[in-house]
Amino acid sequence: MTKLLLATRNQKKLGELRRILEAEGIAGIEVLGLADVDEFPEAPETAPDFEGNAVAKARDAVAATGLPAVADDSGLAVDALNGMPGILSARWSGRHGDDDANLDLVLAQLTDTPDDRRGAAFVCAAALVLPSGEETIVRGEWRGTLLRARRGTHGFGYDPIFVPDGETRSSAELEPSEKDAASHRGRALRALLPALRDLAKA
Amino acid sequence: MTKLLLATRNQKKLGELRRILEAEGIAGIEVLGLADVDEFPEAPETAPDFEGNAVAKARDAVAATGLPAVADDSGLAVDALNGMPGILSARWSGRHGDDDANLDLVLAQLTDTPDDRRGAAFVCAAALVLPSGEETIVRGEWRGTLLRARRGTHGFGYDPIFVPDGETRSSAELEPSEKDAASHRGRALRALLPALRDLAKA
Repeated sequence: MTKLLLATRNQKKLGELRRILEAEGIAGIEVLGLADVDEFPEAPETAPDFEGNAVAKARDAVAATGLPAVADDSGLAVDALNGMPGILSARWSGRHGDDDANLDLVLAQLTDTPDDRRGAAFVCAAALVLPSGEETIVRGEWRGTLLRARRGTHGFGYDPIFVPDGETRSSAELEPSEKDAASHRGRALRALLPALRDLAKA
Repeated sequence: MTKLLLATRNQKKLGELRRILEAEGIAGIEVLGLADVDEFPEAPETAPDFEGNAVAKARDAVAATGLPAVADDSGLAVDALNGMPGILSARWSGRHGDDDANLDLVLAQLTDTPDDRRGAAFVCAAALVLPSGEETIVRGEWRGTLLRARRGTHGFGYDPIFVPDGETRSSAELEPSEKDAASHRGRALRALLPALRDLAKA
């Protein structure tokens, strides 16, 4: 059984990766989270892009544990804000992790933005780093349109104002399994599957 | 004497354009402001770029008054924010015209941005529209670096955190005449001089 560290303390993210591996018939990988290994200092996210933050997190995890590691960084790229909040999505209002303040600020900034210019994408970069130094970096995107007020209670972050292309519901109105199947994180993790399949065989 | 309407109520902007015309030896143009003409409804600034807002303002002024008109739109383009706040500079915090809140938000968003990635540019688009329909649109940029706290009491907007390239003082520590000579607005207005010279001769 090959151990793989997912550099997160979020149980939902751990469950998601385990489900994806199982659905793809990839056996032989045991997914651990940060709670399952000795604590190590986590560097601040200072890269200029999602990919840089994801790979830095994965490298730190490999260096600290010696295990193969996957890490991700994700956010909302708003067309009318030139792709921001982007890597600053979780701290857009200046208050780190304050989902309500961050979402309210985006809505306020887009007050004068007409309906035909409210496009956006959820973006997720995921990186797999092996102890050998081999690195695989992928990106998943989920395009949609931004509402003018919240709808729905599922999800987190900007989900209540994001309507995926082809949908009428916001991503906070989708069932969690529907969101898994379509989301930027799901797309990025599935893009890692060939590399994870190699890892399972090794 | 050719009348020229500068679509602003800001007496400093009127004085600046008059000084530039005088310094260039362009006689024969009388610069009026919005306070000197009958009121007309001003459209909201909804273009996706500075140029679009400037030319829309100038067109509205020409349509309402029949006079040749100059209008400008300007803002701060921050590299680490992909060029934002940009056209949203005056309403970045969601509170239109609240300079303090807008500046504080940019500082908060750049908390984790290292010193070597704090580049920015003040940008100004200016448009001259003639009653004949002829339009001249120009852009002036003023590059610099953003501080982590305010310095200086001159100027307005983001001046207290902007240090122009080649300077050690913030643009709020420059004398107004020094700022005039170097600034994005000065550059844009000077780029309009050939067209204004033609207008003076006409």
